[in-house]
Amino acid sequence: MSDSLETPLSKVKRGPNRAQYDKETAFNIIDSALMCHVGQTKNGQVFVTPTCHWREGDYFYWHAHSKARNVKGPIDEPEKVCINISQLDGLVMARSAMHHSVNYRSVTLFGVPELIDEKEEKVRQFKVFLDKVSPGRWETLRPVSDIEIKATGLVRIKIEEASIKMRAEPPIDDPEDIDWPVWAGVIPLEKKWADAEQDPIQTEAYALPINPNAS
Amino acid sequence: MSDSLETPLSKVKRGPNRAQYDKETAFNIIDSALMCHVGQTKNGQVFVTPTCHWREGDYFYWHAHSKARNVKGPIDEPEKVCINISQLDGLVMARSAMHHSVNYRSVTLFGVPELIDEKEEKVRQFKVFLDKVSPGRWETLRPVSDIEIKATGLVRIKIEEASIKMRAEPPIDDPEDIDWPVWAGVIPLEKKWADAEQDPIQTEAYALPINPNAS
Repeated sequence: MSDSLETPLSKVKRGPNRAQYDKETAFNIIDSALMCHVGQTKNGQVFVTPTCHWREGDYFYWHAHSKARNVKGPIDEPEKVCINISQLDGLVMARSAMHHSVNYRSVTLFGVPELIDEKEEKVRQFKVFLDKVSPGRWETLRPVSDIEIKATGLVRIKIEEASIKMRAEPPIDDPEDIDWPVWAGVIPLEKKWADAEQDPIQTEAYALPINPNAS
Repeated sequence: MSDSLETPLSKVKRGPNRAQYDKETAFNIIDSALMCHVGQTKNGQVFVTPTCHWREGDYFYWHAHSKARNVKGPIDEPEKVCINISQLDGLVMARSAMHHSVNYRSVTLFGVPELIDEKEEKVRQFKVFLDKVSPGRWETLRPVSDIEIKATGLVRIKIEEASIKMRAEPPIDDPEDIDWPVWAGVIPLEKKWADAEQDPIQTEAYALPINPNAS
């Protein structure tokens, strides 16, 4: 069993020096993000849909209304979708305009979505998702209903065909520009969870939920 | 002249109550973000590529190596690409699992990319882009070279077919769940630029660059 996600389709052609195919690295980037972008086609037109995702083992999951394009489309008309998960980490300020860049982590994933239709497995996955969003919260909530389970479409793809691209370094300028008199370096982008805003219609004091590690 | 971006293709089918088509609102979301996700096809396979973008007037621009898929592909094989620009603003914590949601702003844009090949216009657009990344920085940099201009592909699409989806509110629970004894509300996600990290090979003191309003 190889832990490489490289295939002829996922192999990176442009900037191959920044490409990786290691499964663990892909898992870390996938888990660090709450949202991904699902690319699919319908009648020959490409669509990109942002959605929340989660992972269990080698599988990548997302959900939506059972009639939504990004869960129903690839089941009705099976195709290999493309999903990108990316994190912007900083601005790279170089001594010349075209050497400016960004520091980032990005996974591009390919696979044919598979519908999860079995009720107990759906509920189990919804809990895996909520445990990503706020660990321990699932048990404190009003239980999910049969109607909600039915109305929610759940799909997954196996993580076996993907590429990673990352940049995490200072600017790389042309050698002859190194002494150009302008500040050069990286401005990191930080994301943080701000103070929780309680629902205005709720006046009781309850314990705050736990924030996710992903963002 | 209408300022609506609604067309049969861009009309939102799922969750139409959260959909808008107003050009100014779309511009604001586009301008708030540094990165977008470009969806396109090649030989029938969909690809999603994250990239930086900028806007001038009614046009949406991105650039890449002149041979990169996301600038060369739609020129060699013209097609209507789909671009999503989205911002995650917060987690919406409800009293039941399936009413959890996210607050977000998202624009989905369709159009056939047009190549910008004229040298002076390319340079002018690179400056527009850098003015978004760091206002006033362009003038302080080593000027762009003819080789750099030639090696960089620049494309644009007119912003005339798009949809906006937004959510910016507390959880919406079922009425019978309102008194369920669990904290409910929104946890906002904040992004901020952290302390600039000067290139380690640069020891002189220079004025720090101005941070972008987008992130």
